[in-house]
Formats: sequence, C-alpha cells, structure tokens
Amino acid sequence: MNRPFNFSAGPAVLPLSVLKKAQSELLAVADTGLSILEISHRSKAFMHIIEEAEARLRRLLGISSEYHVLFLQGGASLQFSMLGLNFFKSRAAYVDCGAWAEKALKEAQKLTTTTDKTVDVLWSGKSGNYTYMPAELPYGELSLNSDYLHITSNETIQGVAISQDYQRQNTPVFCDMSSDILSRPVDISQYDLIYAGAQKNMGPAGVTVVILKDSLLAQTNPGLPTMLDYRTHINQASLYNTPPVFSIYVLNLVCEWLEAEGGLTAMHAQNRKQSNAVYALLDEYPDFYQGHARPDSRSLMNVTFTLPNTKLEKTFLAEAEKQQLMSLKGHRSVGGIRASLYNACPDEAVVALTAFMQTFYQQHH
Amino acid sequence: MNRPFNFSAGPAVLPLSVLKKAQSELLAVADTGLSILEISHRSKAFMHIIEEAEARLRRLLGISSEYHVLFLQGGASLQFSMLGLNFFKSRAAYVDCGAWAEKALKEAQKLTTTTDKTVDVLWSGKSGNYTYMPAELPYGELSLNSDYLHITSNETIQGVAISQDYQRQNTPVFCDMSSDILSRPVDISQYDLIYAGAQKNMGPAGVTVVILKDSLLAQTNPGLPTMLDYRTHINQASLYNTPPVFSIYVLNLVCEWLEAEGGLTAMHAQNRKQSNAVYALLDEYPDFYQGHARPDSRSLMNVTFTLPNTKLEKTFLAEAEKQQLMSLKGHRSVGGIRASLYNACPDEAVVALTAFMQTFYQQHH
Repeated sequence: MNRPFNFSAGPAVLPLSVLKKAQSELLAVADTGLSILEISHRSKAFMHIIEEAEARLRRLLGISSEYHVLFLQGGASLQFSMLGLNFFKSRAAYVDCGAWAEKALKEAQKLTTTTDKTVDVLWSGKSGNYTYMPAELPYGELSLNSDYLHITSNETIQGVAISQDYQRQNTPVFCDMSSDILSRPVDISQYDLIYAGAQKNMGPAGVTVVILKDSLLAQTNPGLPTMLDYRTHINQASLYNTPPVFSIYVLNLVCEWLEAEGGLTAMHAQNRKQSNAVYALLDEYPDFYQGHARPDSRSLMNVTFTLPNTKLEKTFLAEAEKQQLMSLKGHRSVGGIRASLYNACPDEAVVALTAFMQTFYQQHH
Repeated sequence: MNRPFNFSAGPAVLPLSVLKKAQSELLAVADTGLSILEISHRSKAFMHIIEEAEARLRRLLGISSEYHVLFLQGGASLQFSMLGLNFFKSRAAYVDCGAWAEKALKEAQKLTTTTDKTVDVLWSGKSGNYTYMPAELPYGELSLNSDYLHITSNETIQGVAISQDYQRQNTPVFCDMSSDILSRPVDISQYDLIYAGAQKNMGPAGVTVVILKDSLLAQTNPGLPTMLDYRTHINQASLYNTPPVFSIYVLNLVCEWLEAEGGLTAMHAQNRKQSNAVYALLDEYPDFYQGHARPDSRSLMNVTFTLPNTKLEKTFLAEAEKQQLMSLKGHRSVGGIRASLYNACPDEAVVALTAFMQTFYQQHH
C-alpha cells in the first residue's frame, strides 16, 4: 500500500524512518531482549532513553541549565490548569489569540471562582474571528503585577501564529507551543515556562513536554496535589510515577531524526518553503481559496482557508482523498480546509497538494 | 535472541502475540495506510479501536451500563487526587494496607489542609509492616458518614492482596486495582469507582482505566479544573483532548488476547497455579525463602520474599539474570526479591524460576 499524504492536525505525520525504527525494535529494545512496552521505567535501558531525549531537546532548542525539562502526561489541556495551580497567586494576564488560548484562559478563570484572584485579558482577537496575532506583547499597567503572562505561539485551529519570539519584559512569560515547538529556532530566554503536547511535532500522543525556569519554583503555591506540583516531577526527573514510556521513546527517535536533518534552522527553512507554496495559491486565487489568517500572522504549521461554499469544500475533500491527500478537513468548530504541514511532512506531500489545488481551481472556479 | 523471562512489577511482560501484532501493524493500521502513531484520535479507525477496547473491558469484567469506562492519563497517582477532588466533601475513609494505599491516603490528607475535611484511617497494617489485608471492610461508626471508603486490592510492593471482593455496605467503595485488574473475575457491583494504570495487566504505560458508577456523579464537587472533572471525560467519551492513542490501541489488543485465552476465569486459574508454584517453595524452605505476606493475604500477582541476608539476595539476583530470569529485585523501598506473575507471564517462566530457586536453595542453604 502506498503511504497516503497525511495532513492531520494532530496526532500528525511522523517520519517514516522513525516509524520503521520503532517497528524494527518493537520486540526487543537496546540489549534487553524485551519490548520497550514491557520494561521498567527504572531500567537502565529506559533511563538511557529518557536522558537522551532530554539532552536532544536541550541541544535542539538551546535550553540552558537554568531550565528544567519535564515529560508529563495530560496534554496542554492539563497544563492549562497546572500552571495556574502552581503559579497563579493574585493576578494573571492572558493573550486571547485563538481557540487554544481561549481554553487556557477559561481554565485560569476557573481558578478564580472561590478566591480573590483576577484574570486580565490583555489582548483578544476573538471579535475579529482570530485572524491575526498582536505585533508585540501587549504590556501595560494591567500586566505590571501579573504573576505571569500567557501566550499561545501557534493556533492550530485558526492557523495564526507568531513568526518570531516576542521580546519579554519583567513579567514571567508562559507559552503554549503545542503546535509549533521544534518548528523553528526559539530564544528560550524570552520564556519562563513552555509546554507542548508531543503529538504534532515531537512524537505520538501521550507525552507533554514542559520546559520551565528554575527561578519560578520559589513562587510555587503550597498544598498542591503531588502530581500537579512541578517540583514533584523535577525532583524525580519525570519518574515520580510511571511515565508514558513508549511515547518518550518515540519522541527521542524524532529528536534524533531532527538532529540528522539539520536541526531547527533546517526545519524552519523547510516549513517556510512548504507553507509558502500553499499560501502562494491562496494569494493567486484569493476569491476561490480564502485564507483565514492575515498574511503577517500566517502559521507555518496549519494553513487554513475556505472555499466559496461548503458544497465545494465537501467536493474538495472528497476529491483530495481520492488522491490520497488525507485529513484536510478544517476543525469541526470552524469548518473549511486545514492543511497541517508539520516537520515530518515530506515535500512530495506539498507538491501533490498544490498540484491538486491548481487542478481543482481550474475545474471549479 | 531468546526472549528473557520478565518478572518486572510494571511496566510488565506483554503477550508475545500482542507485541507481534502491534509490530506488524506499526506502519499501517486498519485500512488507513498510516501508523497508529500518526492518525487523528477522531478518525474512524481510532474511534473503532477505543470503542472496541471499552466493549472488551465491559465483557471481561461484566461492567453494566450503570458504570462509565474511561481512558485517562496520569496513572493511579493522579487518581489519588482526582477522586478526592471530585467526591471528597467532608469525610473520607481509608484502608491503609500497603505502600500504594498509603500514597492514596496521603493525597486525601493533602486535600484537608485548607478546609474542614477529615480523613479517617479505618484500618492500618503499617505497624505490622503490611503483611496482611483485613478480613472484611472495617466498617464502623467512622465510616457511616464517609463520602467514600478507599481500598487497594493488591499491594504491588508488599505482595499482599485481597482474594475476593469485600462485601460492601452503603458507603461508596473506591478501589485502586492497578496491579490486579483483569487477574480474576470481579463483582463490579461491590464498587463505585475502580481505577488502574494499564502497565501491569492491561497494556503499556500511558493510559489509566477508570470505571465509575453513574450515580456518583450527582455528588461531584463544583468548580474543578476541566481535565480533573470526571464528567468532562464522560461527556466526551474520553476524547475531550487527545488521549494516549497507542496505549489504548495496545490495551485493546491485550483485551482481545484475554478473551481468546478464556477470559478472567481462565486467567485466575493460571494466576493461582503459577503463584502457588512459587509459594510452595516458600512453604517448603521457610527459613531460606522467607515470604513477606501472611498466607491468607498472598498476592497472586507479586510474590515477595527475602533470603537470610542481603549478600545472598545479591547472589540470587545475579545468578537469576544469568539464566535470563529478569527484574526479580524487590522494590527499592523494601528490598528482597519480588517475582511479578501478571497475566502475560508464561508458564515456562514460572517453571524456570522454581527450578532455579530449587537449585539455588540446594547450593546455598
């Protein structure tokens, strides 16, 4: 069977070489003679894997020893609450730039119901249907006393993103990078806490990476459930309880592949090239392929657009599938078309997609 | 390479046929042409898998429609807090029968620090070094007004277990079955909430099964973080956010294997036979192989014992490894030897272990 072109927004396409390696080792990993699925998380073999995964993430992203790197469970959705439980004391500031930012914001607001905490929305793109990102972090009086300022670097559903790291001021900056981590070089020093579910650019579902600055920890709220206290996982090197062993194993293979491919500079170039190829068609046929994001806020990961009507969109999706172009349907909350072009998306997929879009335009415009 | 005999306490041995099936499908699952690691959790292929996994668990355990079956993340360790956050209102009762029960208890106690909640320890085996389980649930005045009574059916570290379900009274019964779920038929109606990490008897690490009675939900505490509210996951059929897709996929394969093997009655017979073979040696050489558990509380899953001194234990472990008998070291908190004999442990492993123990006794007693 030919491998279809997979434009899923996540869980998303993985490098074929990574899948093949995981397959070849599935009955016996390292020198254990046992599957990665059945070895202790405290075995030498797994300890080596998790340490290697951390070291690779540190090299790829340039993470200094001032930061901890954790492998947790529960996805970004649990982080929405966990970061607040740990660090929200009296005032938290949020940038509401899309569906995921809004979810993060709502979880912070939940923490205010029985206390005198306040959440400030410093900027919201909601009334404008989330078509762009603020040009810079919207600091102001409100943020001066904030425990942290929360941002989302790439909105998977709307397809809007920041194109470079914001310059921080004194307030700690927390960032949900679930859908663009490892897609470009990042200046880690602009952030105090970064989190990301693995299932877009890092590996399969089931593991959540958290990168946080050691100096934050002195401010941790007391009395937290053990599993929801970052210090638990820092003190136990992500092995307080059984971690998601296989997901971390595959994440390590993905990081190995990334390093071999040239790291994040090479990935960034590829991601720009691939997304530009699709955006060029949106610019060429703007009445037919109507891009959602304002050009200055276009995501390199998720290209979102609509067609003149939903009937045409259905035809587009059905014909695309016939050509093995899969999972192009927009998120159920916004409709339209979404082509997700994560790191592991091969150039051939984009060539096939743009050729299909050209032909489809000719036939249906 | 010969497959070693794997006595790991968890993540633990999986059926070879399951590993081979997962391997054979790793590049393309069902009719997708894509790996299970890279398909959307909302794809038809995965929806079929998660529904099948739930249906199989329901059949194997005899779970009626009065109960929900959830696939969550975070392990039993997160459940220790989550069950209290949802259902601990004023008074909670705990049976402290081993290391895991004590951890569950401590998380409940954490929830009392800023409120007027009370945790009652109805029974504790701690002063007796956790060598046995109570004969019946220690109901009494204290439990009358309890929101729930928490028990642990099998203590993985100490190797003590209940041999049949306790008869419940009115107080809701919550049970951590992480290390013996699916090892024997269970009368689900004796419980209101059951939870278990998958990585012993159900599959690889990364997914936690929660079985809970619908009638409990009317009592849920308000204002919980969305991810920590059971109702979120019930309302979204465990798909509120991206679930641990691969772990659920393998769990489904393990359940398929269990059904083919004859279900829980057959497993219970195998588990009794295998553990009896090891316990028989403890009974035969009680001065040399000193069993930890009192005979009426012996675990069928984790056989724990010590040797006359730690030097001899080191020799035992080293010589066992030479014969490919792996992961027999007791938990670091208690030392000694632990042979974990979960469902997927083949009879040959137990034959090899008991033969080794016989020989070792002859050589070293």
